[in-house]
Amino acid sequence: MFISFEGIDGSGKSTQARRLARTMADAGTETVLTREPGGSEGAEEIRRLLVEGRGERWSPETELLLFTAARRDHVERLIHPALARGASVITDRFADSSRVYQGLVRADLRQLVEELHRLTIGIEPARTFLIDLDPEIALARGQARGGVEDRFETLGLDFQRRLRDGFRALAAEFPARFRVIDGSGSEDEVAARVRATLA
Amino acid sequence: MFISFEGIDGSGKSTQARRLARTMADAGTETVLTREPGGSEGAEEIRRLLVEGRGERWSPETELLLFTAARRDHVERLIHPALARGASVITDRFADSSRVYQGLVRADLRQLVEELHRLTIGIEPARTFLIDLDPEIALARGQARGGVEDRFETLGLDFQRRLRDGFRALAAEFPARFRVIDGSGSEDEVAARVRATLA
Repeated sequence: MFISFEGIDGSGKSTQARRLARTMADAGTETVLTREPGGSEGAEEIRRLLVEGRGERWSPETELLLFTAARRDHVERLIHPALARGASVITDRFADSSRVYQGLVRADLRQLVEELHRLTIGIEPARTFLIDLDPEIALARGQARGGVEDRFETLGLDFQRRLRDGFRALAAEFPARFRVIDGSGSEDEVAARVRATLA
Repeated sequence: MFISFEGIDGSGKSTQARRLARTMADAGTETVLTREPGGSEGAEEIRRLLVEGRGERWSPETELLLFTAARRDHVERLIHPALARGASVITDRFADSSRVYQGLVRADLRQLVEELHRLTIGIEPARTFLIDLDPEIALARGQARGGVEDRFETLGLDFQRRLRDGFRALAAEFPARFRVIDGSGSEDEVAARVRATLA
């Protein structure tokens, strides 16, 4: 089973991806926990070009091509082989992040995301959990983490509000695949919601 | 005017690109000499991912996405601005290299090259000089240079023969844009052929 977690920065999606992976492994399922951008050796090298440096370092189109290159490497080197041997894969972000981020930058880029995805990626998760959280709470969580990977996190509260709206609209667009999870409350509470929804 | 030079490794295309740029600059035309992969700050960083390391480091599809990302950056940061201010641009390799290299790796990739080009690049040179040379002579020249950027140059004589055939076939496919230049003889002789053809 191929599962993705999506959400705005600080929503708790990485924590929840890790927790679900542990739960599934404890239940005896071989489970591979991964993330984007990155997740494979080559994709992690491309990730460094994407997450470090100035926000205007790449145009939206070049950025999207780099994300797609990283995703292709991730899919063919890690995700496909794991699924082929019967393991489950849980990824912290996948193509939906490109759909939402690039579509917010410029509406016409959503179409380019879809065309590049169709040409070079193809695969979609069987289930996508959107961890939905008030951007003010999420932003505070994100800022508490710090670090150099701050290209998106420095974009501010208004951008995070638009991201949240974008993710919710995407969930409405693909209702069969998406499950929207209330991200408020403790880690344990959110993890229980994810488990209940998956079961 | 936007001009590209293409050819197999060691054909002398880089030397001829440089010489034509000097000739045009001497004649009073602002001329920007550049190269691919690379040519702009971001594209040069992507270039390092492409030309260093093991040959099997990237799949053909991932490699093509990285080349396209580098080309997009090169076009929007260097080529388009130069042409917009009335300068001429001479580039050592452009999209034709992707068409030939990727098409040789797997025939079906040529179609992907064209689709990515249409979606994200669009522009073609007004004139492309194919510096055509016997691969045995070209390979000897290439090996004399050495260096770390050896991903393609270590592919051997048979691959260079197929590359030459691929470039000649592409020139036949786009006769209005391509000019095939005999690359044998001295630098001066080849440069004179390029100048005569351009005039």
